Formats: sequence, structure tokens, C-alpha cells
Amino acid sequence: GFARVDKHRHIRCGFPEVIFCQGKAVDHVVEIFRELASTGHNVLATRASEEMFAAIERTGEFPAARYEPLGRTITLKQQTESEPLGRITVITAGTADIPVAMEAVTTAEILGQNVELICDVGVAGLHRLLDKVELLQSSNVVIAIAGMEGALASVVGGLVSCPVIAVPTSVGYGTSFGGVTALLAMLNSCSSGVSVVNIDNGFSAAYNASIINSMIEEKN
Amino acid sequence: GFARVDKHRHIRCGFPEVIFCQGKAVDHVVEIFRELASTGHNVLATRASEEMFAAIERTGEFPAARYEPLGRTITLKQQTESEPLGRITVITAGTADIPVAMEAVTTAEILGQNVELICDVGVAGLHRLLDKVELLQSSNVVIAIAGMEGALASVVGGLVSCPVIAVPTSVGYGTSFGGVTALLAMLNSCSSGVSVVNIDNGFSAAYNASIINSMIEEKN
Amino acid sequence: GFARVDKHRHIRCGFPEVIFCQGKAVDHVVEIFRELASTGHNVLATRASEEMFAAIERTGEFPAARYEPLGRTITLKQQTESEPLGRITVITAGTADIPVAMEAVTTAEILGQNVELICDVGVAGLHRLLDKVELLQSSNVVIAIAGMEGALASVVGGLVSCPVIAVPTSVGYGTSFGGVTALLAMLNSCSSGVSVVNIDNGFSAAYNASIINSMIEEKN
Amino acid sequence: GFARVDKHRHIRCGFPEVIFCQGKAVDHVVEIFRELASTGHNVLATRASEEMFAAIERTGEFPAARYEPLGRTITLKQQTESEPLGRITVITAGTADIPVAMEAVTTAEILGQNVELICDVGVAGLHRLLDKVELLQSSNVVIAIAGMEGALASVVGGLVSCPVIAVPTSVGYGTSFGGVTALLAMLNSCSSGVSVVNIDNGFSAAYNASIINSMIEEKN
Amino acid sequence: GFARVDKHRHIRCGFPEVIFCQGKAVDHVVEIFRELASTGHNVLATRASEEMFAAIERTGEFPAARYEPLGRTITLKQQTESEPLGRITVITAGTADIPVAMEAVTTAEILGQNVELICDVGVAGLHRLLDKVELLQSSNVVIAIAGMEGALASVVGGLVSCPVIAVPTSVGYGTSFGGVTALLAMLNSCSSGVSVVNIDNGFSAAYNASIINSMIEEKN
Amino acid sequence: GFARVDKHRHIRCGFPEVIFCQGKAVDHVVEIFRELASTGHNVLATRASEEMFAAIERTGEFPAARYEPLGRTITLKQQTESEPLGRITVITAGTADIPVAMEAVTTAEILGQNVELICDVGVAGLHRLLDKVELLQSSNVVIAIAGMEGALASVVGGLVSCPVIAVPTSVGYGTSFGGVTALLAMLNSCSSGVSVVNIDNGFSAAYNASIINSMIEEKN
Amino acid sequence: GFARVDKHRHIRCGFPEVIFCQGKAVDHVVEIFRELASTGHNVLATRASEEMFAAIERTGEFPAARYEPLGRTITLKQQTESEPLGRITVITAGTADIPVAMEAVTTAEILGQNVELICDVGVAGLHRLLDKVELLQSSNVVIAIAGMEGALASVVGGLVSCPVIAVPTSVGYGTSFGGVTALLAMLNSCSSGVSVVNIDNGFSAAYNASIINSMIEEKN
Amino acid sequence: GFARVDKHRHIRCGFPEVIFCQGKAVDHVVEIFRELASTGHNVLATRASEEMFAAIERTGEFPAARYEPLGRTITLKQQTESEPLGRITVITAGTADIPVAMEAVTTAEILGQNVELICDVGVAGLHRLLDKVELLQSSNVVIAIAGMEGALASVVGGLVSCPVIAVPTSVGYGTSFGGVTALLAMLNSCSSGVSVVNIDNGFSAAYNASIINSMIEEKN
Ligand SMILES: Nc1ncnc2c1ncn2[C@@H]1O[C@H](COP(=O)(O)O)[C@@H](O)[C@H]1O
Ligand SMILES: Nc1ncnc2c1ncn2[C@@H]1O[C@H](COP(=O)(O)O)[C@@H](O)[C@H]1O
Ligand SMILES: Nc1ncnc2c1ncn2[C@@H]1O[C@H](COP(=O)(O)O)[C@@H](O)[C@H]1O
Ligand SMILES: Nc1ncnc2c1ncn2[C@@H]1O[C@H](COP(=O)(O)O)[C@@H](O)[C@H]1O
Ligand SMILES: [Mg+2]
Ligand SMILES: [Mg+2]
Ligand SMILES: [Mg+2]
Ligand SMILES: [Mg+2]
Ligand SMILES: [Mg+2]
Ligand SMILES: [Mg+2]
Ligand SMILES: [Mg+2]
Ligand SMILES: [Mg+2]
Repeated sequence: GFARVDKHRHIRCGFPEVIFCQGKAVDHVVEIFRELASTGHNVLATRASEEMFAAIERTGEFPAARYEPLGRTITLKQQTESEPLGRITVITAGTADIPVAMEAVTTAEILGQNVELICDVGVAGLHRLLDKVELLQSSNVVIAIAGMEGALASVVGGLVSCPVIAVPTSVGYGTSFGGVTALLAMLNSCSSGVSVVNIDNGFSAAYNASIINSMIEEKN
Repeated sequence: GFARVDKHRHIRCGFPEVIFCQGKAVDHVVEIFRELASTGHNVLATRASEEMFAAIERTGEFPAARYEPLGRTITLKQQTESEPLGRITVITAGTADIPVAMEAVTTAEILGQNVELICDVGVAGLHRLLDKVELLQSSNVVIAIAGMEGALASVVGGLVSCPVIAVPTSVGYGTSFGGVTALLAMLNSCSSGVSVVNIDNGFSAAYNASIINSMIEEKN
Repeated sequence: GFARVDKHRHIRCGFPEVIFCQGKAVDHVVEIFRELASTGHNVLATRASEEMFAAIERTGEFPAARYEPLGRTITLKQQTESEPLGRITVITAGTADIPVAMEAVTTAEILGQNVELICDVGVAGLHRLLDKVELLQSSNVVIAIAGMEGALASVVGGLVSCPVIAVPTSVGYGTSFGGVTALLAMLNSCSSGVSVVNIDNGFSAAYNASIINSMIEEKN
Repeated sequence: GFARVDKHRHIRCGFPEVIFCQGKAVDHVVEIFRELASTGHNVLATRASEEMFAAIERTGEFPAARYEPLGRTITLKQQTESEPLGRITVITAGTADIPVAMEAVTTAEILGQNVELICDVGVAGLHRLLDKVELLQSSNVVIAIAGMEGALASVVGGLVSCPVIAVPTSVGYGTSFGGVTALLAMLNSCSSGVSVVNIDNGFSAAYNASIINSMIEEKN
Repeated sequence: GFARVDKHRHIRCGFPEVIFCQGKAVDHVVEIFRELASTGHNVLATRASEEMFAAIERTGEFPAARYEPLGRTITLKQQTESEPLGRITVITAGTADIPVAMEAVTTAEILGQNVELICDVGVAGLHRLLDKVELLQSSNVVIAIAGMEGALASVVGGLVSCPVIAVPTSVGYGTSFGGVTALLAMLNSCSSGVSVVNIDNGFSAAYNASIINSMIEEKN
Repeated sequence: GFARVDKHRHIRCGFPEVIFCQGKAVDHVVEIFRELASTGHNVLATRASEEMFAAIERTGEFPAARYEPLGRTITLKQQTESEPLGRITVITAGTADIPVAMEAVTTAEILGQNVELICDVGVAGLHRLLDKVELLQSSNVVIAIAGMEGALASVVGGLVSCPVIAVPTSVGYGTSFGGVTALLAMLNSCSSGVSVVNIDNGFSAAYNASIINSMIEEKN
Repeated sequence: GFARVDKHRHIRCGFPEVIFCQGKAVDHVVEIFRELASTGHNVLATRASEEMFAAIERTGEFPAARYEPLGRTITLKQQTESEPLGRITVITAGTADIPVAMEAVTTAEILGQNVELICDVGVAGLHRLLDKVELLQSSNVVIAIAGMEGALASVVGGLVSCPVIAVPTSVGYGTSFGGVTALLAMLNSCSSGVSVVNIDNGFSAAYNASIINSMIEEKN
Repeated sequence: GFARVDKHRHIRCGFPEVIFCQGKAVDHVVEIFRELASTGHNVLATRASEEMFAAIERTGEFPAARYEPLGRTITLKQQTESEPLGRITVITAGTADIPVAMEAVTTAEILGQNVELICDVGVAGLHRLLDKVELLQSSNVVIAIAGMEGALASVVGGLVSCPVIAVPTSVGYGTSFGGVTALLAMLNSCSSGVSVVNIDNGFSAAYNASIINSMIEEKN
């Protein structure tokens, strides 16, 4: 086959290779899925189409595989990791940011994390966010997801003492430039403690948050 | 002379032509200043260097002319307009935005407005802004000035019912791109009631705010 | 539900939250529409598809709801506000700008304003615009809508003494870059009294114009 | 020497190579100037520093050479071409555009043209431009020079039946992006009959206008 | 109706308004076509779909209307202007540039010009272009059309003494950025005598060329 | 016909013109294919659709023509060149880069080269690449193909002493900007010996590699 | 004074406000420094000029203040926090990235962290990096600093299981675009576990790393 | 010291590390120069200031070191490699491109190549280039250097059968965007056999050309 799965990654990086499905042939996705599943670890595929999941189901080999249609992930849980006590909070500015949030939630969960999702608390109605301050301040990591002007990351960053991972989304029109405006705003946050990932990259935010949360909890 | 002063503008637009000094020869600035002063109206020159003001002083013709060094304006007050009762509030995210704020304040004052300036209340420390909510809510117009991620405009826009005129500033570095990031954020504000002017354009924000404030007050 | 409607907005900002439909699930739009309608205020939904309106009609709960297909808005008039005496004039450069103009007109009307629409008076045939000067000069606010090179805003700005809110549109091709050229031109207007909103954002222009017009008229 | 002067250009293109001085060593400029002068044709050097002109003067070989400091050209008139009857009109939006206009004027004159310069008639005060309509309409070519939003080209284009060559200038700040905004506006002009040259390229506009004007007049 | 046809344009600019069909409703196109046809002048509609032409045919009112499918123009010839003696040469770099060339050819013809089209003589095989030098040098105006790196304009500009109007096309991929690369190359041509129009704007190039050619020939 | 095939190219450049099919009419492609085939040389058509190949097959004239669906090339082998001994290695970062790699492989093969393809050895799992170092170091040219951050080119460049031709691909999302990020990374490679071609341009990389490899081998 | 120091930040975010000196008046910096020092916490000022430090020294009030000239920070250590056991590793691609690294090192140290700096291990000579793998793999957080093509972040990200915070630097020329290329590359890293901060923002990377490291160590 | 010289590079890549001086401290440059010289290989430092060379001379250790002021390189020849028989031709469009050409020439020479330089043969005067066709066609590699519209690369690419390495330069103004226009043009060349390096990167072009030329000659 064309693909060369990185089988050492679990040892080097603590989690096996994740399948980025976009632009791959359906057959390739199934083949890589099978190869990764055979290691006995959990499997995660992102940017997966329903057609790809159907092909995986058709094999009959992975009855435990699940598809999450909003965030478009396929997961196969093969290990029960003990739940960490600390918490990752995923927070979105609008309802249109939910697909990105779901990619983050599913990723964190398959990585064995304790996640909480809060939606639609954008800065135009600040009280909605201020209602959640306690919850934010008791998190180990916050993932802040926003499109348009991306101001949520800065406001959250000023309210908490834990790391904030900001995800710009492609929600918006005109000069939102498919998420570039939110990205730039987040990179220029006047709040300290904010780092940024690619546009719509809920996966990467959750991966980062998960390794941070795991390291914090491991030490207990 | 090369310049062709627009002498009808006071009639058409309610205020005479304003001298945009940047890129003009010192002699031209003096000549245009003299021509505008001769109409008996107030005179405003923006983006003026100290050298330009010195040349105007040297003529000995305008003892009442004043230079404001932060905002770099020259003003000549020749008319005492009755102060409007309503208020324009100018608010900045950081202290580095003050030069732009001063251009706005001086512009609004020469246009006969009642202005209040609040500095350094950026969203990283939200309580500083929330302390001022009453003052903001009792304004006729708010001018929100911010660089970096420009989130101030959105947060203020969600707190008031009057128009917010947002001014992006060139404060920041790297991906602030000389104010472009703040501009884009402001154009994509999820709060309604926010309109935007060019980067560092304190003058235009104040001009807009002044005609709005004057129209509101005129009707009393 | 995922959505967290901002119910205090009417008190803080003078008008309830507006539903921005783009990117939302049809079910979510119906649910938010119902929640906002239940407050007894007028309801406005922008960027709405015909399918969304059909779903709202199918509920049978909102017989007074209307769909405007060009500007793609859904409105529900539940309050009869006394018409303000002053006027908002909406003006477009070409006929292709009409959808944006209709979003503006519908928004201003549901906000209880007195609106007049003038189309296709772009600067290539200046006499068409000059014919309308009196009408423009007797407005409280002008909304200037143009694509391509966006010169209309500057020319109008030089003819009136009231605020001009400029809306760049995505009309054009090649280097019009989906409205960016018109936006940049408007931000750099050599006329004073022009502020700008996002590309194709007829809603925001009308919202701004409406709060200005209401404040002017309230004082009477 | 390093330079390879294109000596056939007069035959192919009707005018000898023009020296673009920017980025050239002073010695190279003198050497190329001498080589071109030796052909007996008129010589034009653009983007020339005062230091370069001083070096040319110091040679004592070109007593008829002249320096125009605003447009920064060096000219050496060695031929008296019969003045064409038609006219090129150079028109600027502001006084800060004058250096570019002077580059155009000097270029057209050394090419033997009849040029008229009108400055500071930008669209913010339309009457200044309308005062000149007759003059514009009786031109063979109009060169329209403007920075900021560059609207002048569109307005002039709608008033005349001759070709308009638009020159964007780097006058402005913030989102004028060193002339890019004016350039884009001019490329998207809704008026027909407008073509565009590079930012601040008064030379190229005048060169184009001159060959057009010469071709029109030659036919008489 | 919404449209406000500019009926004076023939007098001011020498040719009636041209219908830019893109983004217009089919009904509007028919209505404007009828209004312009009623003046007795020739009619030109650009960026027209086959559907629009079908609608015009269905009216039965314009049996002489013609559709050119590559350049997507509708023309109605109602006047027989005497053919000018001089020639406009339209030249393309590749075969993929032909649609833009056809828009130019049709435009020039309806404006009564004498046009010659040469295709596929890009600079990768220079001899193809050098074969045509005589034809180019005997033109009154050359329209040079190219995508990708747009080098054709510079090479042609160095071979002729008449004006060259360069049209960048959106032919290419990757960093051709939909024609932006060709546009930039043409604006920076090291050959004098080149001016530029918007990407894919065959219409504007032909309109410019036609008024130049007509002015040259008128003088005979 | 519209097309003007460059028949001397084989003599000047060592290989006949290659048909770039994108944006060409199917008929034109067939016509040009026939004309090139008639010279007896090998024929290569890139960016070809299945429909174009079907049309070529339907003619019945080219039974030896082959279609490669991933890289979308049509080839017609008419000459058996002696295989060079040196080797071109094509290497990709991910499996989604394979279509670009196939365009390169097919191009090099029709040009008579000895090619080896290695897929999916991106820098996230460095050992996969280090496994191939010997193979890379024994190549005459390496073609490094990568999307996203394009780091493969720099890492490979630091490992070999032969030229590396880097091809950025449009694989990625958000700020990969359709391959621009990978392109920029490759242009800024800190490794010496890396040159770059357009985004997704497997053809050009292979053409360059082939002429280099042929020149090296010719000398034996 | 104009500045409004955010005195609650220590409570909300775990560290007092940091002084961003760029664009501030020297007097303002001194005043804010004094105000923050009076709280008894450590003080950090970034982007500080030597002149600013001299002014602070001249007051005679802060004998313990130190200036680090490469990273341009002023620090005042007033508290001895117990050193965390875990480690932050700062790693740079080249020697020109050292100023950014020093800003990071100084920031982490004043925040009480255990930091190790490794310079000049860019990917062009991979063995330099591979020599340090053990050191990297035993870190709690890695800060990867690189200009040009920014590939270091991806390569490091593939070698470790802890979070990598990537800092693009403005080192490079031409298409490095002042750090934009490195930024884009880092945002598109094919390695998981990489998040990004603004160009040259060593401070923010260190702040993020410090709160992560502190949270990990606190739990012991 | 901070620097970590890559001493294996000569073995891996065939030439030792080259010192990129820009942004490095003078002391660091001297230290690295000394370390590289001690290996007995030739030494090359690019982007070196006169001050850096003076510091190297002051050490008295490298009497054979030379400074080339146009291309700003320092070279130390310590080995006499046998001159290859094949030739690299460096060709520039204008005289302002000479500094970049000199960086290329010096680099190729220190790498033991046979180089020929041809200046000022830009496409505006094609005959200057056509005069050199034989010389170009007998080269092993051509380096084509041009600013402005960068058309030289395409024209040369169509004339030769050897590889062309194109170097865009920052020569130009306005929309030349510091070399970006030339770069884009070169990446989109319609001639096959052209690859591209970073703006003004004469070094990289020469390095690439040298390894190609050496490989060709080695085989003899
Ligand atoms: N056409 C429109 N353009 C921009 N903003 C809008 C538009 N329509 C509604 N909004 C605002 O967009 C926000 C919607 O956010 P959400 O629905 O939570 O994603 C609300 O604050 C609305 O007031
Ligand atoms: N292909 C075209 N490209 C650019 N402008 C055009 C084209 N065809 C017509 N026009 C002009 O575009 C304007 C159309 O404006 P409107 O039809 O009112 O939106 C008129 O001034 C036409 O002369
Ligand atoms: N995939 C490709 N990418 C870039 N250029 C190509 C490609 N395939 C062929 N070409 C070249 O593109 C040119 C085609 O120009 P034309 O077919 O006349 O539009 C020829 O010089 C071909 O050698
Ligand atoms: N101001 C100017 N802007 C653009 N091109 C110019 C200008 N002045 C001269 N040129 C042309 O630029 C080219 C100069 O090339 P070179 O002097 O060889 O670098 C010649 O073809 C000139 O005709
Ligand atoms: Mg909401
Ligand atoms: Mg502050
Ligand atoms: Mg119209
Ligand atoms: Mg003026
Ligand atoms: Mg062709
Ligand atoms: Mg892979
Ligand atoms: Mg190094
Ligand atoms: Mg020259």
C-alpha cells in the first residue's frame, strides 16, 4: 500500500497516529484504520465523511466504531483509561462554531479526558460568559472557539489562570476571510496565556489540551 | 497656488475643509491654513508636524492657534459654539492608543462637542471596563479605540444602545500587521451597532461622532 | 438546546438579539425564532434561506411572519412603533447591489424606521446622483451601497452633512476580490463623515442608521 | 560597462530608452546618460536624485540638462519637435499627488506634447471638478492621478469620451496600503475607457498618453 | 423598475451604457436591453448567460440580436458605422485565453472597429510571436491577453510603437491566483507604453482601444 | 484552428510541447494531440480529464495512448529511449500528495527517466524518512512533495548532496491557503540545494529533474 | 495618569500585569513599573529600550532591577518562589533567533521556572537536533523558536510527548515576510501537540509554558 | 558559544555550512568563520557587512579572505578545485539586478565553477537577449535574474534545453511588492525547465547550479 503508518508514535508521543481523512481515498482510510486498530490502541479518524464510516462498518470488523456527524470523527474505543480528575472546558462564541467544538470534544474523550462543553457565550452578551466564570476558573485547560472577530479568546484569557488554547473558526462572511480574522485576533490577544492552532482545528486544540491535562493529573 | 480649497464645504457638510498635512509642503500648509482662517470659521489641521506649527506661529497672524503634540493637530478656535448637552465618550484599550485618542478628542472639541476620555480599559482586565458601564451607557456616541486584537469594540458594542465608532490602531507587532488585525476584528464584530473607520483615523471617528451628536442635540 | 439566546439585549442595546441564520441548522433557527417571538418584541432573522422560512411557516405559530427573498430576511412584526419623522436614505451604485439594499431596508423597517431606497445611481453617470441631492441632504442618515470601486460613498459623503454609512458589496470580478476593493476604497474615503461596515452587511448598516435616527428623533 | 543601452528602441518604439535611476549607481547613470545623449535624441531620466543631477552637471558636457525636483526627473532637450495641437490633461485629486503629476508633465513635455495640469480637484468637493468639465472634454487624453480611494478616475471616466489613464498614488495611510487601494479601485472602475498603470508611475501614464496623442495628431 | 439607465452616456462618452449582466436578474436584463435598443443605437451586453439571450429572443422584438458563446456577449447591430481604416490587433498567449479575446473582439466590432485576432503566441515559443511583428507594428492599438506569468505584454510592448492594452486572464493554477500574477506582471512591465485593465476584462480593453482607434482615424 | 503548436520546441528545448489541458475545449485537445503525435515523438498531456482521454480513444488513431487517473495525464509512447542509469527519487510527505507525485512520475517516465516513488514519509515520524537516507543519497535528483507546512523539503535538503526540487501541494486546510504555506516554507528553506516550482506542479518538477538527470547521464 | 494598571490580575491569572513597553512614553513605563513594584510581586517589562531601563535606574528606587539586552527585558525579582522540578526547554533553529529565545528565558525565570536553552539546532543539520532528543523528551514543555521556514516545530513535535509551543521569528528575507512564513508553517504542522503564538513573541510562549509547568508541578 | 556549526555538512551535502551573516552579531560571525576555516575547506559568508569583513581582517588570521561589496560576500579560498569544463551562465534583466548577480557569481566561483555573467538584457529590448542565444544554449545551467515583471525567466526558458534557475529580485516599486511580483511570474512560467528560489537569493541559485554542473562534469 501507499500509506506508511507511523507505528512508533504511541511510544514517542503517547498516542498513536490519528487518521486525517480529508483528501484520502475511502479504501486507504479503511486500510489505515484496520492497521491502527490491530495495535489494540484506541483509534481516531478526523474529517471523515459518512461514506468513509459506512465503508468501515461494512467490513463488519469494528462493531464498536462510532461516527459523530457534527465534528465528523470516527472513534474506536479499545482501552478504558482511568478518567483524569482535572477538567478541559470547551467554550464557543456562537452556535455555528459547534462542529469545531464537537471535533475537539470527541478527540479529548478518545484520549481519555474529562471534558465539558459550553456553547454560544460570545462577547456581545457578556453576562452569558460571566455566568460561567467559576466553571472556567476551575478548569485545567480551556479551549476557546470563535469565528468572526474571535474576541472570546482574549476575554476568557483575562479571566483564568490556566492555559487557553484558542481555535479560530471559519464562521462569518466578507472580511472574516474564512477564519483568518479570528486567527489574527487570537494571535494578537492582549491577554497572556493564550496559544493558537489552525482555523477549524478542533482536533489539535484537544490534543494539546489532553497532553497538558494528562501531565497535570499524572503527577498526583 | 496648487491647492484648491473647498470653500463651499461648510455649507454642504456643516464644517469647513480640514487640512490633512501629511505629505504636504510646509508652505502649502501655511497657505491653506491662512485661506481657511480668513473665512472666520474654526480651523483644524491633522497629522501636523511641530515644524508646520512653528511656521504658522512664525507668521504672527494666528496667536490663538494651538498644537496638541500627541495627536499632532493644530487648532484655531474662532467661534464659540454653544456646548451640546449630550456626550461623546472616547475609550481606549491601552495607553499606546492615546495618540489616536487625542486626535479624536481635539477634533471633537474644535467641532464644539462635549467629550470624555477613558484610557487603558482593554478586555484583558474586564473589570476596568465594567467600572465604566454607566458612563458608557449615558453617552450619545462611543468611540472605541484599540490595536492588537481590537476586541474592545465588540465588548463595548454589547453593553450600550448608542452607536459605537471603532478605530483600529497600528499598535502591536508581528501579525498585528500595522492595525489590519484590529480593523478586521472590528469589521466582523458580533455586536450590532459598530461601524469602523481607517486605521489610526481618530479624526474621522470624531467627525462622524460629532455630526451624530450635533444632530441629536439640535433637535431639543 | 445548544443556543443561549441573549434575552437582556433589548434592555442593554434597545433591540433584541437578531438571528444570523447562515451556518445554523434549520431546527435551531426555528427554536431561536420561537424563543425570541415569545418575548413579544419584533423578530428579525437575516441570511435566511427559503427552507428556513418554510419551516417557520409549517409550525403554524407565526402567521404574521414574512420572507423578503432578495435580502433574505424573515421578519415578525409584533409591535407598532410610532414612525420617526426623520428619514434614512438607502442608495445603491448598481442594480446588482439591490439584495444588500433590501437587507438594509427590511432591517430598518422592522426597527421602526422611515426608509427610502434609491437604486442604480453610480458615479459613472453622475447626473443620476446629482438629481437626488436634495433628497440626500434632507436625510438624517444615508446608507451608501456599492461594489466594484466603491466610489459612491466618497461622492455622497462630499454632498451631505449627515452621517454616511458605507456598505461595500461583493459585486464585481477579478480584482474586486469579493468586495475587498470597495471596502478599502470606503475606508480611505477623502470625504469626512463616512464610516464602514463589513462586506454585504446591509443589516449592520441599517442597525447603525436606525439607532442614530431614533436618537435624533427621540429628542424632539 | 555593465549597462547595455537599447539603442534600437527609438526605431522600434518611437522614443529612446528612458533611464530609470532608482537603484542604479551614480556613475552608471552618468555613463548611460552620456551614451543616450550622444545619439542626438532628447534624454529623460526618472526617479533621479539631486546627487545624480549634480554628477551630470559636474561633467560640464550637458549645459542644457534640467532637474525637476518634485517629479525628480532629469531632461535634456536636443530636438525641437513641432508641438501637437491636441492636448493631454493631467488632473490630481489632492496636492500630495503633485510629485507624481510632475513626473507625468515632464515626461510628456520631453516627448513633445502639449500638457495642462489641474491639481486638487478630488471628489469630496465635486464642484471643483465640474468646473473643469469643458477642459476635460476637449482633451485628447486625460491622466487622472489619485491616492486614498482613487475615486477620481471613475468620476472623470464618466464625464469624457477620450481615454483616461489612471495613476494610483501612494498618498494615504493605514489601509491605503501604499497605493494598493487606489490601484484596485481604478482597476474596478464602473466607467468605461479607464486603463491603469503602476502605483506612482507618472512616467508610464505620460508615455502612454503621448503615443496616443501623437498618433491622433499625426493623422491631421 | 429598479434600473436607472444612463441615457446621456452616448453624448458624454460617445457610446451608450453597456449592460453588465453578471449578477442581474434575467428580467432586468431584458428590460434594460429593450430600453437601450429603443434609442436606435447599437446594444452590447457582456457576461451574458445563454438563458439571458434566450429570454431576449423569446420577446420576438430583436431578430437581429446575436449571442457569442465563448466571450458570452449579446450584440444588436442597429447602425452601420463606416469602418475605420486603422487596426486593433488582439493577441493571446494561449488557447485558454480565447474567451477573453472573444469578449474583446465582439466589443470592438460592435463599436465599429477593424479587429484582427492572433491566438496562442506565448513567449515560451518566441518565434511564433516574432512571425507576427510586422502585423503588430502596423496596428493602431494592440490588446495583449495572457494568464499565468503574463510576460506577453512586456515582450509585445518592446516591439511596437503604438499603445498596448494588457489584459491579465484567470488562466493558470496555484500561484496564478486567478489572474493576480499576470496582472502584477503587466503593471510592472519594463516596456513603456503598456497600460492595464482588470482581470479577464476583455470588454474594457476593447472599449479603450476603440476610442483610441476612432480618435486616430477621425482625424483623417 | 486556434492553436499554434510550437513545433520547434523539440529542437530548442529537447522535448516537444506538452499539452496543458486545463481550460481547453476537448476538441482542441484532440486536435493538438494529433498534431504532436504526427511528429513521431512521445506525447504528454497533463491535467487531462477522463472525458478528454475518451475522445482521444474514440478517434481510434492512438491505440498506445494511456491514461493515468491519479495524476491525470495522457501519454503516448512512440520512442524507446535508452534508460539512463542515474535515478530520480520522488518522495511525498503524505498519502494525499500522491496525485501530484503521479503527475511527476508519469512525466519523468515519458521523458525516458528511471524513477522511484516513496510515499508518506513526512517529518512527524522522522524514522520513516531516515530509513530511506541511503536511497535518497544515491539519487541524481530528488523531488520532494509536501502540503501543509512543507517541512519535508528542508529535512531532505539537509541529507543529500544532489539537487532537491520541491513541489508544494494544495493539501491542507485553513491557513494552508491551498498550498501557499508549503510554497513559502520551501522558498525559505534553510537547507541549500532546494529550488521550487508552482503549487501542485508535479509536471514541472519532473521536467526539471529529467533534463538534469539526462545531462548527468549523457556525459558518461 | 493615563494608565490603569490591572491590579487584580495576580489573583485572576496567577501573575501580575506585565509591562509591554513598545510605544509607551518613558515616563509612563517608570510610573507603571513603580506601581507594580509596590505590590511586592516580581515585575517584568518586555520590549524595553536601554533608555527605559536607564530611567528606572535613575530613580534609585529599584537597585535589584536588571536589564537583559538581547531579549530587551527589565526584571525585578522581589519573591523567591521555590524552583519547580520539571523543566521548560527553549530550543532555536538558528543563532539569529536568540533575542526571541532570551525574551522567553527571562520571562520563564521571573515566573520561577527551571529553563534550559539550546541554540542553533535547525533541521538542515538534523544530527544536531537528534543529539538533544533525550533532553527534549524529559521536558515538561518545549518552546520551539524558528524563522525562515519554521520546520523545527514540526520535527520537534514528532519527537516528544509533551506540549510544544512554537514561536515564529522575523528572521529571514524576501518571502519570509517578517515571520509570516514561519508562522503559517507552524500553524499547519503535521505533528500533533503544537500550538503557536505571535511572531517574535517569546514572552507569550514562556508565559504559556510557565503556567503549564507550574500546574504540572503543583500537583506533586 | 551560542552557535553550533554543522561540521558534517561537507560530507552529507558536498560543501560546508555557509555563514548567513544577516542578523548575526559581528563577534558571532568572526567565531563561526574561524571555526569553518579551521577545517581547511573554502569558506563563504553571505549578506556580510563591510564591518564584519573588517573584523575578520583585524584578526590577522585570514590574509586570503576577500570582500565583494556589490554582492556582499566574504570568501576564503583554501582549496584549488579543478575547474569544471561546463559553464553556468548568470544573466540579468537590468543593471539594478547586479548585486544579486554578484552574490551568485561569487558563490559559484568559491564552489569551483566556471561562471559567465551577462547583464542588462531584459525583454523590453529582445535583440539584446537574442544576441546571446548561442552562449545560453551552450551552458550547463542558466541563472536568470530579474525584478519588476520577471519575464526574463520565461523567455530564456523557451530558448534553452538546460535547467533555468530563476531568481526574482526586489528591484521595482509599487506593485512589484519587493520582488513578489517577479517571484509569482517565475513560478507561473509557461516555459518548462524553470525552477525558482527566494527573492534576491543569488546564493541559493548558484548553489543549486553548482551541484548540477558538478554532477554533470563529474561523470566525464
Ligand atoms: N446579517 C448579519 N450580519 C452580521 N451580524 C448579524 C447579522 N444578523 C444578526 N447578526 C448578529 O450576529 C450575532 C449572532 O450570533 P450567533 O447567532 O450566536 O452565532 C448576534 O449578535 C446578531 O445580532
Ligand atoms: N464586462 C464588463 N466589465 C466591466 N464593466 C462593464 C462590463 N460590461 C459593462 N460594464 C459597465 O459596468 C457598468 C454597469 O453598471 P450596472 O449595470 O448599473 O450595475 C456600466 O457602466 C457598464 O458600462
Ligand atoms: N501541468 C502543467 N503545468 C504547467 N505548465 C504546463 C503543464 N503542462 C504543460 N505545460 C506547459 O504549458 C504550456 C501550455 O500553453 P498553452 O497550451 O498554449 O496554453 C506549454 O508550454 C506546456 O509545456
Ligand atoms: N519611472 C519609471 N517607471 C517604470 N519604468 C521606467 C521608468 N523610467 C524608465 N523606465 C523603463 O525601465 C526600464 C529600465 O531598465 P534598466 O534601466 O535596464 O534597469 C527601461 O525600459 C525604461 O524605459
Ligand atoms: Mg448566539
Ligand atoms: Mg494597559
Ligand atoms: Mg446601472
Ligand atoms: Mg485638497
Ligand atoms: Mg499553446
Ligand atoms: Mg501519513
Ligand atoms: Mg546555524
Ligand atoms: Mg537596462
